[in-house]
Amino acid sequence: MTKNIPRRIILGPGPSSAHPRILKAMSNPVMGYLDPDFFEILEEVSGMLSMLYNTEGTSFAIAGTGSAGMEAGLNCLAEDGEDVLICNNGYFCERMIMMAERLNLNYSSLNFEWGTAIDLDLLENKLKNSNIKLVTAIHAETSTGVINPIAEIGQLCKKYGAKFMVDCVTSLAGIEIKFDEWNIDYAYSGTQKCLAAPPGLSPVAISEKALDYIRNREEAPSSWYLDLLGISEYWGKDHIAHQTTPVNLVYALREALQITFEEGIESKFQRHELMSKALKSGLKSLCLELPVDESIALNQLTVVKIPEGIDDESFRTDLLRNYLIEIGRGLGEFSGKVWRIGLMGESCVASSVFGILNAFENLLIKNNYEIEKGSSLSSASSIINSEFPRPY
Amino acid sequence: MTKNIPRRIILGPGPSSAHPRILKAMSNPVMGYLDPDFFEILEEVSGMLSMLYNTEGTSFAIAGTGSAGMEAGLNCLAEDGEDVLICNNGYFCERMIMMAERLNLNYSSLNFEWGTAIDLDLLENKLKNSNIKLVTAIHAETSTGVINPIAEIGQLCKKYGAKFMVDCVTSLAGIEIKFDEWNIDYAYSGTQKCLAAPPGLSPVAISEKALDYIRNREEAPSSWYLDLLGISEYWGKDHIAHQTTPVNLVYALREALQITFEEGIESKFQRHELMSKALKSGLKSLCLELPVDESIALNQLTVVKIPEGIDDESFRTDLLRNYLIEIGRGLGEFSGKVWRIGLMGESCVASSVFGILNAFENLLIKNNYEIEKGSSLSSASSIINSEFPRPY
Repeated sequence: MTKNIPRRIILGPGPSSAHPRILKAMSNPVMGYLDPDFFEILEEVSGMLSMLYNTEGTSFAIAGTGSAGMEAGLNCLAEDGEDVLICNNGYFCERMIMMAERLNLNYSSLNFEWGTAIDLDLLENKLKNSNIKLVTAIHAETSTGVINPIAEIGQLCKKYGAKFMVDCVTSLAGIEIKFDEWNIDYAYSGTQKCLAAPPGLSPVAISEKALDYIRNREEAPSSWYLDLLGISEYWGKDHIAHQTTPVNLVYALREALQITFEEGIESKFQRHELMSKALKSGLKSLCLELPVDESIALNQLTVVKIPEGIDDESFRTDLLRNYLIEIGRGLGEFSGKVWRIGLMGESCVASSVFGILNAFENLLIKNNYEIEKGSSLSSASSIINSEFPRPY
Repeated sequence: MTKNIPRRIILGPGPSSAHPRILKAMSNPVMGYLDPDFFEILEEVSGMLSMLYNTEGTSFAIAGTGSAGMEAGLNCLAEDGEDVLICNNGYFCERMIMMAERLNLNYSSLNFEWGTAIDLDLLENKLKNSNIKLVTAIHAETSTGVINPIAEIGQLCKKYGAKFMVDCVTSLAGIEIKFDEWNIDYAYSGTQKCLAAPPGLSPVAISEKALDYIRNREEAPSSWYLDLLGISEYWGKDHIAHQTTPVNLVYALREALQITFEEGIESKFQRHELMSKALKSGLKSLCLELPVDESIALNQLTVVKIPEGIDDESFRTDLLRNYLIEIGRGLGEFSGKVWRIGLMGESCVASSVFGILNAFENLLIKNNYEIEKGSSLSSASSIINSEFPRPY
């Protein structure tokens, strides 16, 4: 007897639910990753990724998850002795620090309180008085639910001559990214968030300047597997073999990108905004506290404080076992203090919003909270209906 | 208009064709990788992997391809200043050397002629006069089609106190691996070869000794993403989050392992042996030369010399365009000199053998080779029928 794959409504920080068309595309027969017909598929994927990243540069996917994209950047874009600055306002920034430490990079971190965004004045002050060659930041911090001012940071990087690496794991296809305009040199993401494909690939974009930097390093990056130049040469017109490509995940990514452009990228962003508004309004009707200031709060991920008297783990277990809903726990400093609710890609639909608000209402009442029945659903409904019907 | 995924008979060095049940399993809905029900699936996979590797140790899968497994081993199992010996008799051994060089390991390589196996006397001589702490070898060299004497090398590693890392990318589920009995400390593979699942995961086994070594290193491995200890702690009972797990590829791997045990592991090995015999006999009937001595030739991958007067690339293009068959080109030293024909997993069936022999016969005749029509098919047929019918 093997374990059945259960029904789930996945509203955690990722993976999100995959679109049925994407699952179907993924189950097409395997092709060789050096098959000339497969190269045409790579080209389609690469072209659509560049459109999504808004870049004239190079786009491709690494055979690994978002963290592989993160490590590839740190591994390739700095050499011994060059100063690296990690903007730190969350758990995944701390993962960058851990990686930089292991890679023996000459890094420093600029720390901001969790739940706040990167402060541009402090950053400029730091850049002014240093010789930093690489700045890293996270566009959408999945641990805190905060959006960082990437466009402005990119301007500062330009002004002070630093390369700029951006984590777009939770942002790609959920909020706008303007790779070229924002002066980004390297951005990486995951397929399992707003793209609504299964996890396993990290779709990236890289500037010609960054590729040149890798070409001209004194020593090759310590990781062969995550050498961005090598992987780019496989996706490029010469198709020099590097990693074995997870071909079926590439089929899935292609379908995910196609679905994104069919919906329309602006419509997709608006859907994420609308559902987020409805969810946040409903949560407030349940008297729950949202710790992140509205002006910097993400649409695709909402952080909510665990109310007093509620046991984190048993609440989430109840949600999973009785409502089939998965949400995320708090990480690091926020561990035990918040929940993280994702509305990404295929999970970002009205039924998810109503489903989780209904479950929260019932579970809070079960825990003796005094809540006006139905008010959270009706508050969400009024927001969603103000813009419906829509094609998705 | 998007590119259609074409029909293919993939008889290259990998990926191989995936079993339809595996493709279907993979297209199940995404689950969270921290979902307690998913942990039960991980346990099933880990248990079956350990059975396949013949180990009481720890088994799991890395979120990357076979080369990720290779780099993880080199990255984790040696520290600064410790001597590493790379047994080198093929292209993928040279990839190890390239990785060791980038990782700044204190390595040396023991080189053997391509197409021959590792010489045990030379190896013992080397180990005797050195202080080598880690020995690496490739079980089934996909560039040369040679099997190496892993059991015996393992004995030497034991005798001289070195850890032993083995590449099982092309061997796992195609020929026997006795991880514990052969004194292996770390073995890695890919899902896209004899397991007949799509590429994207590297299923590994690791000894307690090797895990202890990583625990007690002076410095953590330079790669966080490929830290075997971290990944083992996610697959272990505490399920500490590390990489995002490619959940759908894990479904695929589970199905692949189940199908393997349904067929029976011995039957599966015999199938690979029988089809290989039939293919090799048919190729000889076409007067083609097999450069690897029969005693050390792999079943799952057959290397054949490109006959004089045949253009490597246009022959393979003809094969792909007119027969839908993919085979592999020669790599490194063997580039332009050999073809590589894989019969792995789901590609390892009688119809593949007949299909490729028929195509080879036609193409050779087209190229003015004098060949007795039908003799290669009948020679293969007599071998296959000697053991048929069989359940697969």
